[in-house]
Amino acid sequence: MRLGELSARSGLSTATIKFYLREGLVPPGRRVTATRAEYDEEHVRRLRLVRALIQVGRVPVATAREVLAHIDDESLGRTMRLGAALWALPQHGPEPEPDDPEWARAAAELDGLLERLGWSSAREIGALSPAYRAVVSGAVLLRRLGYPADTEQLEPYARKMMEVAGLDLDALEEYPTTAEQAEAAVSAAVLVEPLLMSVRRLAQEEESARRYGIS
Amino acid sequence: MRLGELSARSGLSTATIKFYLREGLVPPGRRVTATRAEYDEEHVRRLRLVRALIQVGRVPVATAREVLAHIDDESLGRTMRLGAALWALPQHGPEPEPDDPEWARAAAELDGLLERLGWSSAREIGALSPAYRAVVSGAVLLRRLGYPADTEQLEPYARKMMEVAGLDLDALEEYPTTAEQAEAAVSAAVLVEPLLMSVRRLAQEEESARRYGIS
Repeated sequence: MRLGELSARSGLSTATIKFYLREGLVPPGRRVTATRAEYDEEHVRRLRLVRALIQVGRVPVATAREVLAHIDDESLGRTMRLGAALWALPQHGPEPEPDDPEWARAAAELDGLLERLGWSSAREIGALSPAYRAVVSGAVLLRRLGYPADTEQLEPYARKMMEVAGLDLDALEEYPTTAEQAEAAVSAAVLVEPLLMSVRRLAQEEESARRYGIS
Repeated sequence: MRLGELSARSGLSTATIKFYLREGLVPPGRRVTATRAEYDEEHVRRLRLVRALIQVGRVPVATAREVLAHIDDESLGRTMRLGAALWALPQHGPEPEPDDPEWARAAAELDGLLERLGWSSAREIGALSPAYRAVVSGAVLLRRLGYPADTEQLEPYARKMMEVAGLDLDALEEYPTTAEQAEAAVSAAVLVEPLLMSVRRLAQEEESARRYGIS
C-alpha cells in the first residue's frame, strides 16, 4: 500500500508517519520508484504500537526506539525478547535506591518470598529485572511512610498474579511470531494494565457491596 | 503528644504539619493552653495518609481534602464510605468521553460481561462508578488505536480480580473502624497498586522462563 493508504489504515497523518520513519521507529517501505515506497501489514501493526507507546504510554521517542530494538532482536531467546522489551518501558512505582540500607533488607525478604513461591527463575534473574527492583523499592517506600510492608503479605497476591500471568501468556501465544508476541506484550503493558487495575477496583466495589450492602 | 513529637513520629517537618493543619487535611489538636495543642495517634495515622496521597500519589490538595471528607463522613454506609473515598482519587486510564458513540457500545458490552459474571451490584452502580467508566473508556481507546477490544476476553481476568478483591477486603477488615478501613483502602490504592502491577510483571517473567527457558 502507499503512504496515503497507510495513513488511512493507521489513523495517523502522513506527516506523523514520516516523522516516525525518520526517527527509525518504523522500518522504511520497499522502494518501488525514486519517489514511491510500498508499505505492508507489518507497517500498520508497527505504527499502531508506536502510537500506543508514544500517545498513550507517553514513552519518550528514545525509549520507544529501545523497546522496538529489543522486539526486533532475533539473537535473543523468547523470554529475553519479551522481557527486554518490557524492561525498557517505564516502570511502576518509585525509582530503586540500591544504596539505601533498607533496600538490602527488603530484597532479602523478597528473595525469601520467591523461594517460598518456588519462582526459581525470578529468584535467579533477581535485581536485573526492573519488576524485582520495583517491588523492593515499593516495600522500602511503604516502610519509610510508616506503613507495615510485610513482604509475606504479598504471597497470596503473588499466587493469583501467577495465574493471571498464565492467562497473559496463553493470550500472547495466539500470535504467530515472537516479534508479534513481543509487540503484543508491550502494547498490553501500556494499554491493558490500567484497564486491569480498573477491573480490580470494580471487583472491590462488587465485593464490598456483597459484604456490607450497597449504601 | 506535642507538635515536635508529632513531627518526629510522622517524619514531616513542623512547617509541613502546620500547612496541612491550615489546609484542613488534618484535624486540629486538642488545645491545652493558649499556645499549646495536644495530638494523638489519630494525627499520626492521618498525616501518614496525607503524605502518601500528596507526596507519592501526587494528588492535589483539594482532591486530598475531598478524599478525607468521604473517609470521615459517618452518614455514609460502609460500601459508600470505602467507595466514595476511592472514587475521589485520580483514576487509571483515559478520561471517559460519554458523547462518543463507541462509548455506548462498549458500555453495553461491559454490562453484558457484568451480567455473565453475576456482579449485580457493579451492574446496578454502573457508570456512577469511575472504575466502570475507566473500563469502558479503556476499551474505546484500545479499539480506536486499532487493537481488538473484546470485553469478553476480560472475563477470566475479572474472575481472578474478584478473588484478589476478596483478599483486599479480608485485609481491610483487620482494621477496627470504618474510618481506618477507608484510610487503609485509600493508602493501598496509592501505594500498593504499583507494587501489585510489579508483582504481575515478575510473575510474567517467571511464567515465561518456565515456558520458554531463561535465555
